[in-house]
Amino acid sequence: MHRTPRREEILDVAAALFAVHDFDAVSMTDIAGAVGLSKATLYHYFRRKEDILGLIVLGTIRDLNAFVDAAIAGVADPGQRLVAFLEAQADYFEQHRTWFQVLLTRFNNLTEPTLRDPAIEWRVNYENTIQGIIRDGVNTGVFNAERPNSVVRAVLASVYWLARWYRPDGPQRARDIAREYADVVLYGVAVRRRNARTARARSAR
Amino acid sequence: MHRTPRREEILDVAAALFAVHDFDAVSMTDIAGAVGLSKATLYHYFRRKEDILGLIVLGTIRDLNAFVDAAIAGVADPGQRLVAFLEAQADYFEQHRTWFQVLLTRFNNLTEPTLRDPAIEWRVNYENTIQGIIRDGVNTGVFNAERPNSVVRAVLASVYWLARWYRPDGPQRARDIAREYADVVLYGVAVRRRNARTARARSAR
Repeated sequence: MHRTPRREEILDVAAALFAVHDFDAVSMTDIAGAVGLSKATLYHYFRRKEDILGLIVLGTIRDLNAFVDAAIAGVADPGQRLVAFLEAQADYFEQHRTWFQVLLTRFNNLTEPTLRDPAIEWRVNYENTIQGIIRDGVNTGVFNAERPNSVVRAVLASVYWLARWYRPDGPQRARDIAREYADVVLYGVAVRRRNARTARARSAR
Repeated sequence: MHRTPRREEILDVAAALFAVHDFDAVSMTDIAGAVGLSKATLYHYFRRKEDILGLIVLGTIRDLNAFVDAAIAGVADPGQRLVAFLEAQADYFEQHRTWFQVLLTRFNNLTEPTLRDPAIEWRVNYENTIQGIIRDGVNTGVFNAERPNSVVRAVLASVYWLARWYRPDGPQRARDIAREYADVVLYGVAVRRRNARTARARSAR
């Protein structure tokens, strides 16, 4: 599909509406009005509202995958690879916040298979990237082998942390927030280690 | 306000609607129909939709505070206090999932001050409870003093982790999920400590 300026503008304007309003509450009339087109002209570009949503969602998850893959490609150590992953995710989030917001919150409004199916494949690919980093980290003794699922969950939850704490006018860039998060989930906030507590408890008996 | 059976039923049914649908998309007619009342009868119980929302939100945040306060009251060690806090939050979430969902997602639809103001006070109280646990933990050397704000964020984010991973028909109880989360944020998923990496880097120079 060719990305012409007008098509791109429609997608951007529609994304801004989808990010703020319930999907059902946004009409093609609303989108046309926000872009400054007649409804008839809008229909020349896109047949249905769901096609617009689909291109936003699919475009974002596909480009996010490419962006993150490029960022982690040269990083061998799994711990550093994880940090690189989280930072890249944060950078992409910051640069494409509206589209990212739509991806995060409106994915399930996309029901039509032609666009939903590839979007789901990209989402699976993203989760496989995460699983790969963690598997390598567990196999090389960098990550705790006892709870690989916790690690996967911690990484998958990172976007919620970003979305919750990021302020465009705030003191922290998105990657600062991502680094803070990586620090918490990698090293924890407790001073004493889990093993140290168990060892002390054993010796006290 | 007396909680009579019919008022309670209306609140429960309305909560189920508010949890699933956009607030603006739920009408008093919808609520009346779902309870099996005429709209006129519903208006005898509640004057406006926002009053219903207000009682759900305020009741939940108030009772959640009381529940958690009772659970942590006898726990001295800040690390254990934090775990007790997260487990109590999880228990309450599991027992009152629909109302909790409304609290999490529809708080900002509550604009009328009479109900919003006390709800905000209870929310501030909740955050103060968290801040108190963390302050005690930092002062006693249990939590990392370098990043107290990260710790606060980690605790505030715990509800999102619960909401994201909890399945009522799943293998984990809510408090299992909370314990898993506590383990990640307290001790991290990396095998080597932050200090150990820095020390090795220093000795390698």
